[in-house]
Amino acid sequence: MTRAELLSQILQKRSYLCTGLDTQIEKLPQGISRDLRGMVEFNQRIVEATADHSVAYKINTAFYEQYGAAGWSAMEETLAHLPTDTFRIADAKRGDIGNTSSMYAKAFFDTLPFDAVTVAPYMGEDSLRPFLEFPNKWVICLALTSNAGHADFQLGEYEGKKLYERVIETVCKWGNPDQLMFVVGATRASLVSDIRALIPEHYLLVPGVGAQGGSLHDISKAGFIAGAQESGAADEAAAAEVVGVSGSAGATCGTELAGGTANPGMLVNSSRGILYASSGEDFAQAARREAAALAAEMNELL
Amino acid sequence: MTRAELLSQILQKRSYLCTGLDTQIEKLPQGISRDLRGMVEFNQRIVEATADHSVAYKINTAFYEQYGAAGWSAMEETLAHLPTDTFRIADAKRGDIGNTSSMYAKAFFDTLPFDAVTVAPYMGEDSLRPFLEFPNKWVICLALTSNAGHADFQLGEYEGKKLYERVIETVCKWGNPDQLMFVVGATRASLVSDIRALIPEHYLLVPGVGAQGGSLHDISKAGFIAGAQESGAADEAAAAEVVGVSGSAGATCGTELAGGTANPGMLVNSSRGILYASSGEDFAQAARREAAALAAEMNELL
Repeated sequence: MTRAELLSQILQKRSYLCTGLDTQIEKLPQGISRDLRGMVEFNQRIVEATADHSVAYKINTAFYEQYGAAGWSAMEETLAHLPTDTFRIADAKRGDIGNTSSMYAKAFFDTLPFDAVTVAPYMGEDSLRPFLEFPNKWVICLALTSNAGHADFQLGEYEGKKLYERVIETVCKWGNPDQLMFVVGATRASLVSDIRALIPEHYLLVPGVGAQGGSLHDISKAGFIAGAQESGAADEAAAAEVVGVSGSAGATCGTELAGGTANPGMLVNSSRGILYASSGEDFAQAARREAAALAAEMNELL
Repeated sequence: MTRAELLSQILQKRSYLCTGLDTQIEKLPQGISRDLRGMVEFNQRIVEATADHSVAYKINTAFYEQYGAAGWSAMEETLAHLPTDTFRIADAKRGDIGNTSSMYAKAFFDTLPFDAVTVAPYMGEDSLRPFLEFPNKWVICLALTSNAGHADFQLGEYEGKKLYERVIETVCKWGNPDQLMFVVGATRASLVSDIRALIPEHYLLVPGVGAQGGSLHDISKAGFIAGAQESGAADEAAAAEVVGVSGSAGATCGTELAGGTANPGMLVNSSRGILYASSGEDFAQAARREAAALAAEMNELL
């Protein structure tokens, strides 16, 4: 998926919500069998219920891998239920020496039709490079994560900057904003404006809203792409084109966007809050309500 | 597998060789079908041919994952062919927030019977902790890797030390030498004596000998556990016990070890050099010769 197609989704749905399919069999609601088949059925119903409000879906590979090859099959089946116009993220946090990363890239971009994969930066350039070689695919590099352990290494001083800042600065040299995002946890909103200053154009993938305590309002205020009316103009024109608006209608759309809509430059993830909004048979409606509420808040913020 | 059992394997085989099953379908030799079935058959024959000289096997998950769920099945089948008295490593380089890392730990230690898994340190303590909670299982944390990109972050100065040194120092607080190893590439043998000084007792997993240019001799001289006759005494006694040597024979064995055998405190990996020693139908014999040659060199060094 191109950057323009992603923005088009965001503008159409007036949402930058990513729904995380961190599905746990032991938490499946009433009426769904507690096995891998139930996991896939649940995911499918969650996706159908939330697709009007969710521009992206994030599949956390660990939740599937824990069941071995059968779990991988369930992941593949889940992926097949994701609408192809949504942004499909493999939250896999991979990264290895060059020839090995090539195989991970093949796994997620070629064998499976993900649009993006999360990667860990510790092993450096050749561990990321193979992922960046796939056209219209995205690398989402860990920068400042939302977990407690983020303070162990990411916040320390590395060659005159915080390590996560140096990671962002260095990794930015290997790819461009049309193919490279960063993971920035919502739990550290106070640091997000600094990050936005460092990378004015890159999308952020933001976990940690909801269960982990981050605020959608705070992270959005801190992390939206500044001056989207100007710097996002190319984006917006392209997005208008993608949604099929042309001629005078396109101009109107462009004006409208320039007049009021920012490019958020972020995808905010919610997993548990949506998936387990109800443990009853109304789980899909409850998930839809939850996604709609988040999207409504996003619409206000846009 | 316990530390004593691992050392017992090393002393019995007089080898600290780890064979990396980085199997590529396109490189399968004559007489083996170039598909997943062939991949498993090849692995089985390589394992049978090398098990006398190899104390550990390392399965690089990327090589299997690139084929999706079917590839995971091939990995599981390969794992089933590994002798249970060898040290079975999932080279997966995982790591995520706590609850997610728990699932990766379950994937490799519970669903699959690996003894160890490689992990990336960037996300800090809660990303490693769940792996350390499994008794007699091992975490192998990335420290100083063998690839070109190791210089991008690992060698920079982080709070007064090199980042990889700080990683080692910090991660050591979370686990003990009976459950925690570090990845240290053979391509930087000059740094390995410093690492050994920092962690006198931890095992190292050493990739990069052979295809990547590292020297077995240099890395062994730099990285063996110093004064193994003393500090390794408990190890050695336990290992003697595990191999079933008791009473006066045990004493003899103990004396012999104290007199001449070091605890290498490392597993040195070779993948391509063994797997593709011949592209002909004699691939298994060629792999065995290659493994035997490495083990003979290791025997000299011990």
